[in-house]
Amino acid sequence: MEKLKRKMEFLMEIDKLKNIFRQSMLTDNSRNENDAEHSWHIAMYAIVLIDYAPKDIDILKVLKMCLIHDIVEIYAGDTFLYDEELTKTKKIREEEAGRKIFGILPEDMADEFYMLWQEFEDKKTKEAIYSHMLDRLEPIMLNYATKGGSWQKHNVTKDMVLSRLDLVLKTADDSIKNFILELLEDSVKKGYLKE
Amino acid sequence: MEKLKRKMEFLMEIDKLKNIFRQSMLTDNSRNENDAEHSWHIAMYAIVLIDYAPKDIDILKVLKMCLIHDIVEIYAGDTFLYDEELTKTKKIREEEAGRKIFGILPEDMADEFYMLWQEFEDKKTKEAIYSHMLDRLEPIMLNYATKGGSWQKHNVTKDMVLSRLDLVLKTADDSIKNFILELLEDSVKKGYLKE
Repeated sequence: MEKLKRKMEFLMEIDKLKNIFRQSMLTDNSRNENDAEHSWHIAMYAIVLIDYAPKDIDILKVLKMCLIHDIVEIYAGDTFLYDEELTKTKKIREEEAGRKIFGILPEDMADEFYMLWQEFEDKKTKEAIYSHMLDRLEPIMLNYATKGGSWQKHNVTKDMVLSRLDLVLKTADDSIKNFILELLEDSVKKGYLKE
Repeated sequence: MEKLKRKMEFLMEIDKLKNIFRQSMLTDNSRNENDAEHSWHIAMYAIVLIDYAPKDIDILKVLKMCLIHDIVEIYAGDTFLYDEELTKTKKIREEEAGRKIFGILPEDMADEFYMLWQEFEDKKTKEAIYSHMLDRLEPIMLNYATKGGSWQKHNVTKDMVLSRLDLVLKTADDSIKNFILELLEDSVKKGYLKE
């Protein structure tokens, strides 16, 4: 019963992910997206785009990664991809947050989640590389749908977007890579994104 | 490229799930929960409570079910569990909605998702029974955390909750069943839920 209570406590605590807001706007431009919605959405991307994933990928591991990858932000906050000051301290802030929040769980599960999250952050295994691509792709789609939503607001240029897509452009399936590059080009043409 | 475009179109369309609001309130009582957040949350419940799932369950299938189980509500709307009028037409409204929204996808994936969603609705396989339990448990936890949030608002009684828990009480692991029953009893004692 003690184990179940800790699990339930964790499940209640992570409800707070629904109040961690991101820079991306929803497609209807009505408000900012939150981390819980984003996590659901990239898990859906993971399933829908499975034909473009690396060969022999462990899709269950990918889904778990997608679902938990932002939970540390409940204690560490969302760090905007283009905020260079905050990005400097991101790693240490998030590691502390990860130990604290996953530590609510029984030890074996706490360790599993912490390691899974670290694997995501390290971007080395194929599951992490695929999840990272989805984590980058989703806000690009939202930016495109909202005619440049957070790009406009923060004066983001195409070069800035490309610099954060370094690993994606090196590792993603060609169809996905071309899709993203065409979307960015079209965004510049339409005035959603600065050249 | 045609297939990828249809998949991307689907991924954009389901962004609307973030604007389908449910009766449940977030734990901090600040606002209603939406379907995307709820879907993320029950997927997390699925992983965290896996030790209490039926034996030899296909957890990947469960996660897919949890993630897609409410997508039809984008076209059919959320039907409150205790709204008897709307519940009468729920099945037919949702089947139409399902064909329409999953139909954006390439045919093989559209069929897979539609069947997975139907399997969830039928509550017969162990994956569907476990997902159904999570779908019932999560709003109970939110109601408890908010001192009876949507129960209070809609004059829901303990008997009404129990009647919607019929299958859960018949099929769930004893620890989970006892946890829920104790929570409901405590809710009555604390005045969150009417006897």
